Amino acid sequence: MTEHTVTSYDEELKSLAIKLTQMGGHAEKILNDSIVALKTHDKDLAVRTIEADETIDVLEAEVEEQAVLMIAKRQPMAVDLREIVGAIKISSDLERIGDLAKNIAKRAVAVQAEMDAQKSIVAIDHMSRLAAGQLKDVLDAYSQRDLAKALDVWKRDSDIDAMYTSVFRELLTYMMEDPRNITFSTHLLFAAKNIERIGDHATNIAETINYLVTGEPLHDPRPKEDISSFTPSDYAQTDD
Amino acid sequence: MTEHTVTSYDEELKSLAIKLTQMGGHAEKILNDSIVALKTHDKDLAVRTIEADETIDVLEAEVEEQAVLMIAKRQPMAVDLREIVGAIKISSDLERIGDLAKNIAKRAVAVQAEMDAQKSIVAIDHMSRLAAGQLKDVLDAYSQRDLAKALDVWKRDSDIDAMYTSVFRELLTYMMEDPRNITFSTHLLFAAKNIERIGDHATNIAETINYLVTGEPLHDPRPKEDISSFTPSDYAQTDD
Repeated sequence: MTEHTVTSYDEELKSLAIKLTQMGGHAEKILNDSIVALKTHDKDLAVRTIEADETIDVLEAEVEEQAVLMIAKRQPMAVDLREIVGAIKISSDLERIGDLAKNIAKRAVAVQAEMDAQKSIVAIDHMSRLAAGQLKDVLDAYSQRDLAKALDVWKRDSDIDAMYTSVFRELLTYMMEDPRNITFSTHLLFAAKNIERIGDHATNIAETINYLVTGEPLHDPRPKEDISSFTPSDYAQTDD
Repeated sequence: MTEHTVTSYDEELKSLAIKLTQMGGHAEKILNDSIVALKTHDKDLAVRTIEADETIDVLEAEVEEQAVLMIAKRQPMAVDLREIVGAIKISSDLERIGDLAKNIAKRAVAVQAEMDAQKSIVAIDHMSRLAAGQLKDVLDAYSQRDLAKALDVWKRDSDIDAMYTSVFRELLTYMMEDPRNITFSTHLLFAAKNIERIGDHATNIAETINYLVTGEPLHDPRPKEDISSFTPSDYAQTDD
């Protein structure tokens, strides 16, 4: 059934897409607010941001339930099946992005008394803007089914990785300069790592868009997956 | 269709379960080997371990593809649908466990020249044994549909969290004692965090088993989810 026999199928697909857009909007906001909380030492904002992540979790459960029911009821094939499976994958990445951003908000409370952290937070702020831009672009690419835009996000992930490596080294330097910098630097190290992983999830979404549009997985390994030439800080870059 | 009309449906379910068992076996081995590589500074073992993760990724893709085709073809309802959706969720957790263990193997290369790291590695080794035990028990609980055993894994996750907090503090102390300890301690900090997250994924699998057996999600929040009483090191514990 390549032609849908009932319009409500398209409505169901649309409703899935709307939920993903909502999840993406919440994820962007949580990431942004967690960095603001980090910069301004705003504990109340941090706590509100931690609590806001719940909304994403609820939406993910709804997407998953609806998607599975659609597959069971409609028996979609080929491109339709890809659409639904793609929605499940994207919602899972968005849920992880929400978790990672929430974890930054938790750390915002831990480092709030440390004014010396300000300089590293500037670099992390910059990293988070890159990641937020990637997230925004990949969600636009999804709603427009824009493969070129998705591949552009996919390629730009190396910018975030490069910045992570630089922040990682900078934080290590602060720790070595003064033991009093170690505790907050450690939290900022994990915050930077979370942003790097948010970038990875944006890249996953780009790969899902490629699969939706072409029906084929992306075969090129991303450059950072090359394990033959890694330096110690490279090891810190990726969980993949 | 509560009674399966053809035996091949059960065979398909069995084939899914076999793939999950294989994934679990590989994940246990990668976790174990990554810690051995860390302890013995064995770069060759680390590289082999990094490469071995690929097998898990391939199996996850197979589980996902087979599960989606089963849903589309069989239109399973109720308990049958839960079985298939559960298999997708568990394979996703096992794939993440493989990634996290692989990342420890990458760090094993980075810290190999640092003999001073040995003492912290002992604590991380201990943590990894707890996590490997949780993984083994939750996979047994899955194959036996043993809800009590799954809930036991779920409850014991707090042991790994407590040990993570202790390792986190210990590593911070080493860093403060001597700046030369900072680089390797940072890698070990991420390794410990990865093990803590492997424990979280074992807990996710326990929650999936509960859903498979009872049809209901687990509602009790785990103790560490309580954000009202957290101390700085608590922030470092969870991405959830």
